[in-house]
Amino acid sequence: MSTQVEPHSRPRVEGPREAEILEAALAVLAEVGYDRLTMDAVAQKAKASKATLYRRWNGKVQLVIDALQHDHRQHHYTEQGVVDTGTLRGDLIDAFCGHGGLTDKPEVDAFGAILTAITRDAEFAEAFRTQVLAPKLAGSKALFERAKERGEIRADVDIELLAPALAGIVLHRFFLVGERPTKALIENVIDQIILPAAGVSHPTVR
Amino acid sequence: MSTQVEPHSRPRVEGPREAEILEAALAVLAEVGYDRLTMDAVAQKAKASKATLYRRWNGKVQLVIDALQHDHRQHHYTEQGVVDTGTLRGDLIDAFCGHGGLTDKPEVDAFGAILTAITRDAEFAEAFRTQVLAPKLAGSKALFERAKERGEIRADVDIELLAPALAGIVLHRFFLVGERPTKALIENVIDQIILPAAGVSHPTVR
Repeated sequence: MSTQVEPHSRPRVEGPREAEILEAALAVLAEVGYDRLTMDAVAQKAKASKATLYRRWNGKVQLVIDALQHDHRQHHYTEQGVVDTGTLRGDLIDAFCGHGGLTDKPEVDAFGAILTAITRDAEFAEAFRTQVLAPKLAGSKALFERAKERGEIRADVDIELLAPALAGIVLHRFFLVGERPTKALIENVIDQIILPAAGVSHPTVR
Repeated sequence: MSTQVEPHSRPRVEGPREAEILEAALAVLAEVGYDRLTMDAVAQKAKASKATLYRRWNGKVQLVIDALQHDHRQHHYTEQGVVDTGTLRGDLIDAFCGHGGLTDKPEVDAFGAILTAITRDAEFAEAFRTQVLAPKLAGSKALFERAKERGEIRADVDIELLAPALAGIVLHRFFLVGERPTKALIENVIDQIILPAAGVSHPTVR
């Protein structure tokens, strides 16, 4: 195969090379926003050729979505792989304060660009909601379902409503008031709002 | 004064005329976003001359901020003028579901543009936070303070954290999941999350 004869003229995009390109895409997204992000700019940032990018991604929608998914894949915060700390409080802190969580700088920096893209680009909005957000929400719901099963939270808790609330409260503070998410803020929201709303009056771990 | 001799060549911008221009600004904001909003486009929408606009506003930052404030001034949802329904639940529904609230269409339509402008334009972000958001947050906090004073909510409720939570949860659902704010959703968040977090286990009005 020609890829083996001329590895540099036909690089395969996978493994560490793929990761570099996806991280470059996230960086460019945070820097210039979605509107102004181009395949060219990402290629330049990743020191790759534009042709290399196009061999793997057909355009910027999928490149950016993959970059956002990549960030989450490195973490365990998905329906399949949530860490079980034994308490809802521990699970939430683990999910929201780790890599790919809300305290993660590249993630949060890109979020302004993501919100703009959602309001302006219906194709991106659809791809983001189904490919990035849905697994994230499912992961969050799984934590609450598990807590309900072990009797830690009220049996009638509306998980559909409560599971996304933590992210909503924290991101609202970030965008509207300019307060960056910290572990202390997230713990505070969990202890003051999420757990009381779930009927956990005395958090098991403090 | 020449303004009285030639009223049409030097229109004073106030009253219903001001309101028309501010409503036009809000409509243009929702249509094209903050980046692409120009004094020209607003003038055209309001059937006013650009000169008329510049007599009253020195640029688009203040025009848009005034348009957003105007929307709130028509409503009572400010620190000075919150309606007292007698319960926190009633007060919150009144504040969030009335004109200028989260169920108000022009308000919510403009919000995507506002978020984008906040992340891209530091001058707008500062003006929005101090002139539009701060009075709104103060109004929301006043409702919780009043509830605390009459012993309706726990004395140790962190109002700074809880007062903006309702808007955060509802706007997060709107932007990320695409769910438009409705009175039913807002009541649900109040009953399932806000009141339990405030220690009101049995809402006084249902």
